[in-house]
Amino acid sequence: MVKTAVIGGSGYTGVELIRLLSAHPDLKLTCATSRQYEGRPIEDVFPSLRGITDLTFSAPDPWQVARSASVAFTALPHKTAMEFIPKLLDQGLKVVDLSADFRLRDAEVYAAWYQPHSAPLLLEEAAYGLPEIHLDDVQKARLVANPGCYPTSAILVLAPLLDNGWIDPATIIVDSKSGTSGAGRGPSLTSLYCEVNEAIKAYKIGEHRHTPEIEQELSLLAGRSVTISFTPHLVPMNRGILTTTYASLTSDIEDKLLFERSQAFYADAPFVRVLPPGRFPSTSFVSGSNYCDIGYKIDRRTHRIVGVSAIDNLVKGASGQAIQNMNLMLGLEETSGLHIVPLYP
Amino acid sequence: MVKTAVIGGSGYTGVELIRLLSAHPDLKLTCATSRQYEGRPIEDVFPSLRGITDLTFSAPDPWQVARSASVAFTALPHKTAMEFIPKLLDQGLKVVDLSADFRLRDAEVYAAWYQPHSAPLLLEEAAYGLPEIHLDDVQKARLVANPGCYPTSAILVLAPLLDNGWIDPATIIVDSKSGTSGAGRGPSLTSLYCEVNEAIKAYKIGEHRHTPEIEQELSLLAGRSVTISFTPHLVPMNRGILTTTYASLTSDIEDKLLFERSQAFYADAPFVRVLPPGRFPSTSFVSGSNYCDIGYKIDRRTHRIVGVSAIDNLVKGASGQAIQNMNLMLGLEETSGLHIVPLYP
Amino acid sequence: MVKTAVIGGSGYTGVELIRLLSAHPDLKLTCATSRQYEGRPIEDVFPSLRGITDLTFSAPDPWQVARSASVAFTALPHKTAMEFIPKLLDQGLKVVDLSADFRLRDAEVYAAWYQPHSAPLLLEEAAYGLPEIHLDDVQKARLVANPGCYPTSAILVLAPLLDNGWIDPATIIVDSKSGTSGAGRGPSLTSLYCEVNEAIKAYKIGEHRHTPEIEQELSLLAGRSVTISFTPHLVPMNRGILTTTYASLTSDIEDKLLFERSQAFYADAPFVRVLPPGRFPSTSFVSGSNYCDIGYKIDRRTHRIVGVSAIDNLVKGASGQAIQNMNLMLGLEETSGLHIVPLYP
Amino acid sequence: MVKTAVIGGSGYTGVELIRLLSAHPDLKLTCATSRQYEGRPIEDVFPSLRGITDLTFSAPDPWQVARSASVAFTALPHKTAMEFIPKLLDQGLKVVDLSADFRLRDAEVYAAWYQPHSAPLLLEEAAYGLPEIHLDDVQKARLVANPGCYPTSAILVLAPLLDNGWIDPATIIVDSKSGTSGAGRGPSLTSLYCEVNEAIKAYKIGEHRHTPEIEQELSLLAGRSVTISFTPHLVPMNRGILTTTYASLTSDIEDKLLFERSQAFYADAPFVRVLPPGRFPSTSFVSGSNYCDIGYKIDRRTHRIVGVSAIDNLVKGASGQAIQNMNLMLGLEETSGLHIVPLYP
Repeated sequence: MVKTAVIGGSGYTGVELIRLLSAHPDLKLTCATSRQYEGRPIEDVFPSLRGITDLTFSAPDPWQVARSASVAFTALPHKTAMEFIPKLLDQGLKVVDLSADFRLRDAEVYAAWYQPHSAPLLLEEAAYGLPEIHLDDVQKARLVANPGCYPTSAILVLAPLLDNGWIDPATIIVDSKSGTSGAGRGPSLTSLYCEVNEAIKAYKIGEHRHTPEIEQELSLLAGRSVTISFTPHLVPMNRGILTTTYASLTSDIEDKLLFERSQAFYADAPFVRVLPPGRFPSTSFVSGSNYCDIGYKIDRRTHRIVGVSAIDNLVKGASGQAIQNMNLMLGLEETSGLHIVPLYP
Repeated sequence: MVKTAVIGGSGYTGVELIRLLSAHPDLKLTCATSRQYEGRPIEDVFPSLRGITDLTFSAPDPWQVARSASVAFTALPHKTAMEFIPKLLDQGLKVVDLSADFRLRDAEVYAAWYQPHSAPLLLEEAAYGLPEIHLDDVQKARLVANPGCYPTSAILVLAPLLDNGWIDPATIIVDSKSGTSGAGRGPSLTSLYCEVNEAIKAYKIGEHRHTPEIEQELSLLAGRSVTISFTPHLVPMNRGILTTTYASLTSDIEDKLLFERSQAFYADAPFVRVLPPGRFPSTSFVSGSNYCDIGYKIDRRTHRIVGVSAIDNLVKGASGQAIQNMNLMLGLEETSGLHIVPLYP
Repeated sequence: MVKTAVIGGSGYTGVELIRLLSAHPDLKLTCATSRQYEGRPIEDVFPSLRGITDLTFSAPDPWQVARSASVAFTALPHKTAMEFIPKLLDQGLKVVDLSADFRLRDAEVYAAWYQPHSAPLLLEEAAYGLPEIHLDDVQKARLVANPGCYPTSAILVLAPLLDNGWIDPATIIVDSKSGTSGAGRGPSLTSLYCEVNEAIKAYKIGEHRHTPEIEQELSLLAGRSVTISFTPHLVPMNRGILTTTYASLTSDIEDKLLFERSQAFYADAPFVRVLPPGRFPSTSFVSGSNYCDIGYKIDRRTHRIVGVSAIDNLVKGASGQAIQNMNLMLGLEETSGLHIVPLYP
Repeated sequence: MVKTAVIGGSGYTGVELIRLLSAHPDLKLTCATSRQYEGRPIEDVFPSLRGITDLTFSAPDPWQVARSASVAFTALPHKTAMEFIPKLLDQGLKVVDLSADFRLRDAEVYAAWYQPHSAPLLLEEAAYGLPEIHLDDVQKARLVANPGCYPTSAILVLAPLLDNGWIDPATIIVDSKSGTSGAGRGPSLTSLYCEVNEAIKAYKIGEHRHTPEIEQELSLLAGRSVTISFTPHLVPMNRGILTTTYASLTSDIEDKLLFERSQAFYADAPFVRVLPPGRFPSTSFVSGSNYCDIGYKIDRRTHRIVGVSAIDNLVKGASGQAIQNMNLMLGLEETSGLHIVPLYP
C-alpha cells in the first residue's frame, strides 16, 4: 500500500478523491489537508464517509505531508498549486496536480490566460495526464498535470478524427454541457439550488480557461496550430459533462470504418467506450465511473461530423483520472481502484 | 369575447393553451377536445385548473367545434392535423395549428421529412406564424402554422445576423438544449423521471424534423439556400429551450453596433428582449412567459459569432406564440393575454 | 393606483412581490429598496424583469419610502423589521410585514423563540394575516403580520378539523416538506445545488421558529392550548410546500360530511381549494399561484385523520398572501392581481 | 464463485442487482432473464453496463435457470414470484425474493392486502430478510423474503426504540419520502419527468401495501400487536428514502443514553450508522451504498421522539440488501461485494 496524501480535500474533487482512495487496493489515504476544516474528522465534514475513514483534516504543510505520504494529489486553486507542489517534489513525492497550473506547455500561453508562472521549468517537465494520449509521458513522470474536465471530454472525442485526418481542424466547434459540481463547493449566488434548477445557460463564451488547453492538445494531434470555438453551459444536474463537437469532413467515410478505427484508436484504453453507429452517450450511463463514452454521427447533408462524449466530471473529468495517472506513475494496473460500474439510474 | 376551441387539449401544449386562455381578456375557451379524456371535466384531469374552468373534454368532432367556437387552436399529432383542419376552415373558423403539418412551404420537402401531404393547397396558403418575421402574412391569414419550439429559438437569434449580412450562411451550426415537456405527455420509457434526471444526451443528430423548418426560414432571410447542422439535446428540466448558434463572421463588427442593430431589428417585437453586450440568457428568466431572450458574443480569436437564445418551449415555443398569432389574426393587441412576468426562481 | 413600496426587494420573496405587483391592476410599484443592490436597475439584478419595470433599487430609508409610496411590504430579516416598520407607520403608511416580527401575539413567546421585542405595543395591534381565519382583523389593520410559509400550510389544513371538533388537539403532528427557495437567496453551503439535489433531509426538528406561530393559531381554533410536533424537511425543488398532518379522531365521520363541512368552512375563501374525497394535492398544481389545495384521508384502521395541503411557498406562503392582505386592508377585491393559473408542468 | 441468476433483470432493481453482482468477489452472474428483452445483450439494453457484462437476457425458464446457476434473485412482480419460486427451490436453488410474496408471515393478512396465496407453506418457511433483526433465520434459510424499501427504513429506525421499551407502540406514525426509482421502470403517466419534477405529493395514504409488513415486524419487536399510520410521498429525485417517525415517549431518556443504546443495538450491523445527537441523515449521504443512516431527536415539549432514517431505496431498500441476505445464506462475509462508499454529491 502506497501512502497517499490529498492536498485540498474539502472541495468536491477532494472528497471524490477520498471516496475513490477508500476503495483502492494499492493506495492508502494517510493524510488529507484542508485549511477550512483543519482539525475536524473527515467523516464529520462529509457524512457520506462516516465509518469509512477515521482521518482528521490537517493543515496543508508540505513537510508534514512528506512525512506521512510518498505520493500526493493536489486539489488546490491554481496559483496556490504551483507554489505548493515544488516543495512536495523536493521532498521526493510523486504528484498528480488537479489544478490548471501545469497543463499548458507554453509559459506564455499560461501567462496570457492566468498569470505569470512561478515554476516554468516544472511546466516543461510535467506530463499532461490524459493517458489515452500521453501514456509514456505519464508513466515516466514525477509530476502529472491532470486535465480539465472539459478538455478531457473534448479531446477524447476529437482525437480519433484528427489522428485519422478526417476533419478540417479549422472548423472545430466544441459545445459542452456540465453538471453543477464543476462549479465547486464554495458558496456563491450562481451555484444556489434555485439559480441552477430549471435553468440552463451558457457562460464564459469563447473565454473559458480550458480553451487553450484543448487547443494545445488538438494542435499536437493535428500536427498544426488549431483554434477552436468553445462554449460551456451549466446544466441542472450534479455530475456529468456532455460535449458535442462539430467539424467539417475532409472526405467521405463509412460509419463502419469510423467505428472500427475509433475503437482501434482506443484499443488499449480501458476507460473509453466507443459506441456502435447509431448509439449516442448520455451522462447517466457513466455516473460515478471513470468511463468516457463516445459516439459519432456523420451528417452527409452538411458534410460535417458530430461527435458526442459523456464523462462524470468528478471522475474521468478529475479525481478518477488523477488516480488512473497515479496508477501509471507507480507501475500499478491502470485500472486499479477504478473498477466502478456506473450508477444508473 | 371570441369563442375559442382547443382541439387536442390533453397534452402539455393543450393544457398550456387552456392556462393562457383562462386569463385572456378577449378570447373565451368554449370547447376543448380530447379523445382520451372525452366526457371528463378538465379540472378533474388537470388539478391545476380546478376552479378555473368548468368545461368538460368533448370528442374532436369538427362540426361540434364549429358550433361552439369561431376560432380554434389545433394541438393534434401531425397527419391528424392536416386531415382535421380543412373541415374547420370549411366551417369558417380561423385556425392556428400547433402541429408540423403546415409549416413547410414545399410539399416535397414535407413529404421527404414526414409523409405525402393531403392538403397541398392549404400548405401554400398557410402563414408561418413567427410574427417577428412574418407579421403581415399572419395578420391576413385564416390558417397559421405555429412554428416548432426549436425553430422559434433558432430563427429569432439568427435573423438579425442574416438580415445584416454579418454571417456566412454556409457555416451555421445550431446546438439546442430542451426541457422535457417538449417530449410530450405520452408515457414512454425515455421520458420517465429516472431516465431524464441527472442525464443529458443528444438525440436525432442531423435528423430532427425541425431541421427543414429552420432551413426554410433562414434561407428566406439569407436570400439563398441554407443548410445547417442541428443537434437537439434533452435536459433535466420541465420547461425551456436554450439554443446556442455558431457562424463565421463576414466582417468585423463592434459589439455596440451589433446590439443596436439587433434591438432595431426587433424594435416592434414586444416579446424579444435583446440583452446588452456581455449578458446572456438563461431559461429560468423566461419561464412561463412569451419572451425570447437573446444575447451575442463576438469571438475575435475564431472570427465567429456565438448567438444564444432562451424561450419557454411551451409558451413562446408553442402555446403562447399560438395566442400571439391568433391575436394578430383577429386584429387584437399582439400582447393581449400574454402580459406574463416570468416565474423566477 | 395605490403607490406601493417593497422594502428588501432582492431576496426571493422580494422579487416575487415585484413580479406580482407588476401585474396588479390597483397597486403600482413606486419604490423598491435593497441595501446590497442600491443604485442598480431592478432589471439588471433580475433579468426576468427586463422590460417589465424601469425602477432602480434605492437605499432603505423610511422617509424616502414614505415620500414615494402610501403602502409598503417589508421583506426584511426579523429584528430589522421591527425597527424599521414603526417609522413607516409613523409616516402614515399601511404595512404588510413578511418577517416573523409581528406574528406572535405574546411578547414573551416571541422573546423565547427570537429575542426581546422592541415594539410590544405594535405586536398587540398587528393582525395575523391569514385572511381565511382573520378576515375582519386584516381589513381593519394598518399593520398586518404576514404568516410564515409552513404555518400557512399547516393552519389551513387543520382549521376545519379543529373548528368542527373532529380531532384531539393533543395528538397533532405536522410533517412539512419545502422547496429550497424558502431558504432564501443568500449564498450558503447548504443551499448549493449539489447539496440539495438528489437529497432530502429533516432540519430543526422540534425547534423550528414557525412552531409557536402554528401553535398560537391552532390554540385559537381549538379554544385551548395546543402543543404540536413540527418537522420541516428540505426537498429538491424550487417552489412548494406539502404539509402532511396527523391527528386522532374524536368521533367517526363520513368522507362526504368531512368534504362538505370543509368546503363550507372555506366557502368565502377564494384561494382555498378543498379536494373531493380520494384526491390529494401536489405542489405542482399550485405553482406560481395563490392557491392552497387541501385533501383529507380518514384512516379507520388507526382512528386518525391525515390532512395534506399544498401551497407555493413564495406565493400563498409569502408574497401572494401579502398582496391578498394588502388588498383587504385597502378595501380592494381580495383577489385583485392574484388571478393566476398555476404553472403546470 | 457461486453461479448466480437474476430473474426479472430489466427493472431498476434488476439492473441494480447486475451492477452489484458485477463487482462481487464471490458471486458470479451467469444468467439474467427478461421477458421483454429476451435475446438482447444486457449492455445493449443498459448502456451503463457496456463492457462490464457480455451476458444476454434469456427467457425466464426455471429449468434453464437451474442449469446455469445455484442461487437466484427474483425481481418479479408479486403473484408471478410465488408461482415461479417453488420451481427454483425444487431444483435446489437458494432464493432471495425481492417481491412482496413471502414477506408476510400470515397468509390471511397477505390475502387481505394482495390476493390468496398459492404457496402458504413456503410463506411459513421463508425468512424475513432484514439481517439486522433476523440474522439467524436468514443464515439458515433457503428462501429469504427481501423486505420492502419503506419497511426497511421504518423498521430500522424504530427497532431500538421498541426494543428498549422507550415508546408507546400505539402512537407510531411513519411519514416516508421516496425517490422515483421506487415506482419502477414501466412507462406510466405519473412517473414522467414533468409529472414528478418540481412536485411532491402523498399517495396511498393509509393504504400502502407496505403497511402490514411494517406492522408485522414492529409487533414482533414490541411483543404486542402494533397498528401504525403510514404515509408514503413521492419526491423529485432518483434514489433515496427518508423516513420520519413519530412516537410518544414512555419515559424521559437522555440523548447520550439513547445514542449509546441505539449504537449497541446495531453493534454487529455493518450497514447501520447511528448518528451522534444533533446530527440527522440525508439521502445524499447514502446514495449508491447499502448504508442505513439513523438519527433521533427527543422533543421534550411534546414528550415525543422523532426518528429519521435514510437509505438508498435501490440498495439497502432492495438489491443491496438482497445481496447481503445471499451472503449470509451462503456463509460468506455479510459485507462481501457491498463495500461501497456513497456517491456524494
